Amino acid sequence: MAKNVLIIGAGGVAQVVAHKMAQNAKEFGSLHIASRTVAKAEQIITSIREKGHSVEFSTHPLDAMDSNAVAALIRKIDANIVINVGSSFVNMTVLQGCIDTGAAYLDTAIHEDPAKICETPPWYGNYEWKRREACEKAGVTAILGVGFDPGVVNAYARLAEDEYFDKVDSIDIVDINAGSHGRWFATNFDPEINFREFTGTVYAWQGGKWTENKMFEVGREWDLPVVGKQTAYLSGHDEVHSLSARYKDADVRFWMGFGAHYINVFTVLQNLGLLSEKPVKTAEGLEVVPLKVVKAVLPDPASLAPDYQGKTCIGDLVKGSQDGKPGEVFIYNVADHKQAYEEVGSQGISYTAGVPPVAAAILVARGTWDVKKMVNVEDLPARPFLELLGDLGLPTRVIDATGDHPL
Amino acid sequence: MAKNVLIIGAGGVAQVVAHKMAQNAKEFGSLHIASRTVAKAEQIITSIREKGHSVEFSTHPLDAMDSNAVAALIRKIDANIVINVGSSFVNMTVLQGCIDTGAAYLDTAIHEDPAKICETPPWYGNYEWKRREACEKAGVTAILGVGFDPGVVNAYARLAEDEYFDKVDSIDIVDINAGSHGRWFATNFDPEINFREFTGTVYAWQGGKWTENKMFEVGREWDLPVVGKQTAYLSGHDEVHSLSARYKDADVRFWMGFGAHYINVFTVLQNLGLLSEKPVKTAEGLEVVPLKVVKAVLPDPASLAPDYQGKTCIGDLVKGSQDGKPGEVFIYNVADHKQAYEEVGSQGISYTAGVPPVAAAILVARGTWDVKKMVNVEDLPARPFLELLGDLGLPTRVIDATGDHPL
Repeated sequence: MAKNVLIIGAGGVAQVVAHKMAQNAKEFGSLHIASRTVAKAEQIITSIREKGHSVEFSTHPLDAMDSNAVAALIRKIDANIVINVGSSFVNMTVLQGCIDTGAAYLDTAIHEDPAKICETPPWYGNYEWKRREACEKAGVTAILGVGFDPGVVNAYARLAEDEYFDKVDSIDIVDINAGSHGRWFATNFDPEINFREFTGTVYAWQGGKWTENKMFEVGREWDLPVVGKQTAYLSGHDEVHSLSARYKDADVRFWMGFGAHYINVFTVLQNLGLLSEKPVKTAEGLEVVPLKVVKAVLPDPASLAPDYQGKTCIGDLVKGSQDGKPGEVFIYNVADHKQAYEEVGSQGISYTAGVPPVAAAILVARGTWDVKKMVNVEDLPARPFLELLGDLGLPTRVIDATGDHPL
Repeated sequence: MAKNVLIIGAGGVAQVVAHKMAQNAKEFGSLHIASRTVAKAEQIITSIREKGHSVEFSTHPLDAMDSNAVAALIRKIDANIVINVGSSFVNMTVLQGCIDTGAAYLDTAIHEDPAKICETPPWYGNYEWKRREACEKAGVTAILGVGFDPGVVNAYARLAEDEYFDKVDSIDIVDINAGSHGRWFATNFDPEINFREFTGTVYAWQGGKWTENKMFEVGREWDLPVVGKQTAYLSGHDEVHSLSARYKDADVRFWMGFGAHYINVFTVLQNLGLLSEKPVKTAEGLEVVPLKVVKAVLPDPASLAPDYQGKTCIGDLVKGSQDGKPGEVFIYNVADHKQAYEEVGSQGISYTAGVPPVAAAILVARGTWDVKKMVNVEDLPARPFLELLGDLGLPTRVIDATGDHPL
């Protein structure tokens, strides 16, 4: 029987998810989208209509911080798959709603406590993985972090394991956005989440243990397809925290590209204390979280889409050996901001994050990935996912001993 | 009969004023200090006691935005002179309290409306000067802007007029703080007022009319006594708006020294919209004025004093002619942050702003400056003021055709 899908969230990524669901409606039963502000969900439906899709798509108001409300909505609409692309603060309540009702759970970013920045590694161990047993007991499929990074890059690592190396020595994930939005400064997704990624300790898994650095302390120049030479910095990121569990003997690092301008703005805000998640009190006695004010003055990431030009390149450089013979492979995708906007009305960063959970939902609906337990993406066969992503607009390419070629 | 004095405000400048009043208590009757937060006034009294002054000094709670409350306090303590060194937003209510009771009014900065940045020139015309007639009618002495700049620099201009030139061609006021507070970033006085000075249009009076520039658009290197070569930028400042009225045929400019680090931080905050005085709404629906949050995260200017090292140089380069013979004179003061801290527990910027209104109060008490009307500092004889300032710790020096010498 066709599976009903509920999207939670109505931001830039949710917009991509909803468009892609509409494009692939034949894979599913009824389609639903829920948001605290239902008007935002309705705007997304309007943009889907503008692209000529007439598929039925219901909108619902929802406080996703309330797991009972989540469960009640799932029951009401008989949802079988929940795609959580709301704020990172709602993961655990949405997951609980799925466990309570038996719906499959997909998300694209790790859970965060609004009051804490950068908890102890592995991050998944602090929240999601504590529900592994509950998922298994309830027979609930929960696929964690199935956006692009985390998500597709985890599948790239698994592909290297499956098809290239019997021993993996290192996984370097490199994320370069060589696009330009034309604004003086903007973040590509929710500024609150964007900055929180970089204000804490940078954890990497190297030499069989967690290593700690500060943001922008370790930089390296990369020469990548299409985007060329780019400087990327060792950064903290979700996927390092799951990949290090499966690839204990490999070094796992995440590198994010930054220009000097971004680093300068970040450094000023950080050093002044404006990226703090802890409230300060104004002279007038008002309690305010500085980071939330920074978010309020920055451009809405969704507003960048119409003018966004250029391309992203995100990939995994995996080194290892097969039968004792060392080698390396770079598995990657190049996405185009303008193409993404023309197709779904979003910029490339939202596009790369929003297409993968739809591919995952299709695989769950088809049964391929309906594993009835909690997993990260590298725990699942990679090829069906990557091939489907190619059909959905995120083709994988590989640079190996034979050259640069499609998957 | 000895005149009773009421200080309004309990910030860094008020601390200097109170210390200097205590040092010169014999010039006055009873001494009083009032603040919204009376505990801050009490701290100032404690710091005066720590310097060994046992003079009686009363503290009072006061909402200076309420002119009736100001008048009531003036009547209660029978104050004859009010030194307003509270926020720039209370000038008009404090002035009204003085007009209603006949007390003399002194302040050190122009009135500002919290909701407006950079109004049309001349700024005094928007608020204070509208009360000229009321002051004259009530026989109230009101001396506007009698800090250092505005204040002493206005007297420097008047000194050049009185003793050097029968025709003044240009007045360039240069303010260099070559001190170092050792923090990553801090403003030397209330960040809200500090930044508001630079976010609007830079008005100068040149060629007999108002000219407009952006902040940091026009820079010039100056080579000054003690502090040496320093880059200063054409900036908006109160005294340009009064001096241009008295010296209509002269160019009047204000130059403020800034390092590259200050300019970078300012530029980032300004371009992001974080220096705005207009409220924004956070995602959670809280209305916040970004500038007030920036103020909340920055160091309290008073906290910089113990570690502040180095010197300030503030002066007027006045060009003109006497009997048709052209000439120029640089009239200036050099102050030392550490000396200021040792004497009154404040850094040099507060010291230079806080000593002049005490000198003015002494001149009002003695009758020399008790003019029973509203004036700016350049409207009063300069020499008695500058000589008294020398006795109080802010000696004037002059560079003229005869060399560099004390006044």
